[in-house]
Amino acid sequence: MGIIVQKFGGTSVADPQKIHNVANAVIKEKENGNDVVVVVSAMGHTTDYLIKLAKEVTLNPDSREMDMLLSTGEQVSIALLAMAIQAHGYKAISMNGQQVGIITECIHSKARIVDIKTDKLKKNLEAGNIIVVAGFQGVTPDGEITTLGRGGSDTSAVAIAAALKADRCDIYTDVEGVYATDPRIVPNIQKADVISYEEMLELARVGANVLHPRSVETAKQFNVPLRVRSSFKLNNLGTLIIGVENMEIYKPVAGVAADSSQVRILLSNLPDIPGTAARVFGALAKNNISVDMIIQSLASNGTNSIAFTVDEDDLNGAIDILETVKDEVKAGEILIDKDISKVSIVGAGMVDRPGIAADMFRSLAENNINIKMISTSEIKISCLVEKENAKPAIKALCKEFGLETTEMAVVKGDLPNL
Amino acid sequence: MGIIVQKFGGTSVADPQKIHNVANAVIKEKENGNDVVVVVSAMGHTTDYLIKLAKEVTLNPDSREMDMLLSTGEQVSIALLAMAIQAHGYKAISMNGQQVGIITECIHSKARIVDIKTDKLKKNLEAGNIIVVAGFQGVTPDGEITTLGRGGSDTSAVAIAAALKADRCDIYTDVEGVYATDPRIVPNIQKADVISYEEMLELARVGANVLHPRSVETAKQFNVPLRVRSSFKLNNLGTLIIGVENMEIYKPVAGVAADSSQVRILLSNLPDIPGTAARVFGALAKNNISVDMIIQSLASNGTNSIAFTVDEDDLNGAIDILETVKDEVKAGEILIDKDISKVSIVGAGMVDRPGIAADMFRSLAENNINIKMISTSEIKISCLVEKENAKPAIKALCKEFGLETTEMAVVKGDLPNL
Repeated sequence: MGIIVQKFGGTSVADPQKIHNVANAVIKEKENGNDVVVVVSAMGHTTDYLIKLAKEVTLNPDSREMDMLLSTGEQVSIALLAMAIQAHGYKAISMNGQQVGIITECIHSKARIVDIKTDKLKKNLEAGNIIVVAGFQGVTPDGEITTLGRGGSDTSAVAIAAALKADRCDIYTDVEGVYATDPRIVPNIQKADVISYEEMLELARVGANVLHPRSVETAKQFNVPLRVRSSFKLNNLGTLIIGVENMEIYKPVAGVAADSSQVRILLSNLPDIPGTAARVFGALAKNNISVDMIIQSLASNGTNSIAFTVDEDDLNGAIDILETVKDEVKAGEILIDKDISKVSIVGAGMVDRPGIAADMFRSLAENNINIKMISTSEIKISCLVEKENAKPAIKALCKEFGLETTEMAVVKGDLPNL
Repeated sequence: MGIIVQKFGGTSVADPQKIHNVANAVIKEKENGNDVVVVVSAMGHTTDYLIKLAKEVTLNPDSREMDMLLSTGEQVSIALLAMAIQAHGYKAISMNGQQVGIITECIHSKARIVDIKTDKLKKNLEAGNIIVVAGFQGVTPDGEITTLGRGGSDTSAVAIAAALKADRCDIYTDVEGVYATDPRIVPNIQKADVISYEEMLELARVGANVLHPRSVETAKQFNVPLRVRSSFKLNNLGTLIIGVENMEIYKPVAGVAADSSQVRILLSNLPDIPGTAARVFGALAKNNISVDMIIQSLASNGTNSIAFTVDEDDLNGAIDILETVKDEVKAGEILIDKDISKVSIVGAGMVDRPGIAADMFRSLAENNINIKMISTSEIKISCLVEKENAKPAIKALCKEFGLETTEMAVVKGDLPNL
């Protein structure tokens, strides 16, 4: 007997029949003896439709008015789901972001949650209601409607779970859980039963799209146990995501992921003087261009070169900026390499196990895959390879680190209710 | 320079092009030097679509959740209209019922407005904004979303105009104003330039559907000058509706209307004892059945008969109730007459001019129209006639009272800004 927060995305509530399926999943958790808060997104393509409508009115809609517009999508879903749950004979009540008191910054279209009021939620739970909350939306202290941007509904669910000190937050999706890599590339890949927040974050950043990093970060911050599970197979427990401190045994490598959306930029023949890197990356940052991998190396002739990767959408913007700073930092050439994929291995166990990096490089070499660039963090090692080598690299690394068949992690202690 | 409240219905904002037309009408009033608050309904058939969606989820949706659902329709319209106004280079801001503070009773689907907060409205007007407000919706003191039921958006507009002490409330519709009768029946009928609240109320009650009586009653209560005008002909001033005390000259009969949606019920052979009528109409009222005309007459044999009319939708319910009280009041028979239309003449000038009723009856007689039942109020005389006689009766009465060609009323004193 505890509090469970559930979250269902837009495809799960796309039509009245699917809404009834969600109602069944919600009621199942209620029948388990739990208090249930369920967070939903807008139905199916509603948000796309509303965006299209706005674009027909003006090509440059105001972000405040967009939030006013888009927040209606979730309000429709919550009303319909509450009706569906009631139709099955259970008490339910819908609440929009304003009614709950999901307080955000006043930054339209990508507000961050700063507080969640729990008094009305608790009152409605105590009255025996299943509460249906609109995801993706909040309200400023002044009563302005905001939306949370990418990963918003997942984040709403996790934040509500944190505020209510819920026992678990279940994110229902169209996959059965978290996989060590993309099952389309390695068909016999195993679903993880348990994975740590940190590993999930690294996997999300390198291309595993099950959860937005933002929701995982919120879960990690407030230590909310997350479950990623299937909307279609309700008896499947999916993947539990918890703190690494709760895990006793884990494989050194939890997952392999690839990201082919980046391009590499090389600034050659830079004089070896202080402040060059700061000038270059400062200018990019000021223009909101995120840089991922960075390698600076000193050549035998005493000049530096700086190589880094940016998202391909940012390439033109980055070149414009680099052209303006090129003379100032006395760079030789700006070289672009679009034929890259970043292949990464992720695992909280790497820290304790030396030689993982060497195993990765050896495995790629044995498969004749050339490495263009390397970067490492505490729980991740990334290699840039040619695009056509991404899939062979993933397959080789999954085999190398035994991700095809066995379990990745074992829970430390007993967490039977999760 | 004053405050003008405008209201546009669902057909006026049915698509992005029409929304831009509305934006133009709004901007025109702003350019006249006025502060403008514009109230809009949901786009086109949005409300019908949402109701259909709810019915697909459950045949008996909860009224609270219906309000949560339906209130999104207006929220979409206000966001899009605010965007459109901004696209024309004017400052605009949308506000839903909760944000304005349109406080209502906690009666879902047909709440009445109890208060309208003006602080945020005034603040936004002072900042130079055109304010776009969601009609048809409000919020209880507890933050529950309500809708106002029939005539809701018109009532929102009038109530906001009253709260802001606006100079005028303009209701934009698909007709050019208020006509003395249905132009489809009497093609050469004249539009009224000015009409009183009282006359408008009586016309609305007997079948003129331009404005819901509720909005007219609110306007009368707070003395808000109303204009009914065309969305399509912005230069046409339509019909001004004001208090009878502001009118100096008016025709005795302002309009003729017919209502063919009623049925007549006759209880015959009632003993002439006190309390019979109270028992009959008390039972009907307790079951929410509204009774319109009532005639009680004493027959030569010393028994009473009571005839009255109800809406045909209420006929079966009324019969059920009458069957239960029939024995108690010792009624002879219950007779039903479905072949009736109620034809009424309405005019604030009747009070001062004797003989209007006689003129009406004579005119009908000259046209061989038999009168089944008569009822009168201070500014209205209604006759029940056979259904097929409704149109000939309207034509005859328009001719009799000179409504085909001339103006009906003249404003008393000068109200040049209206």
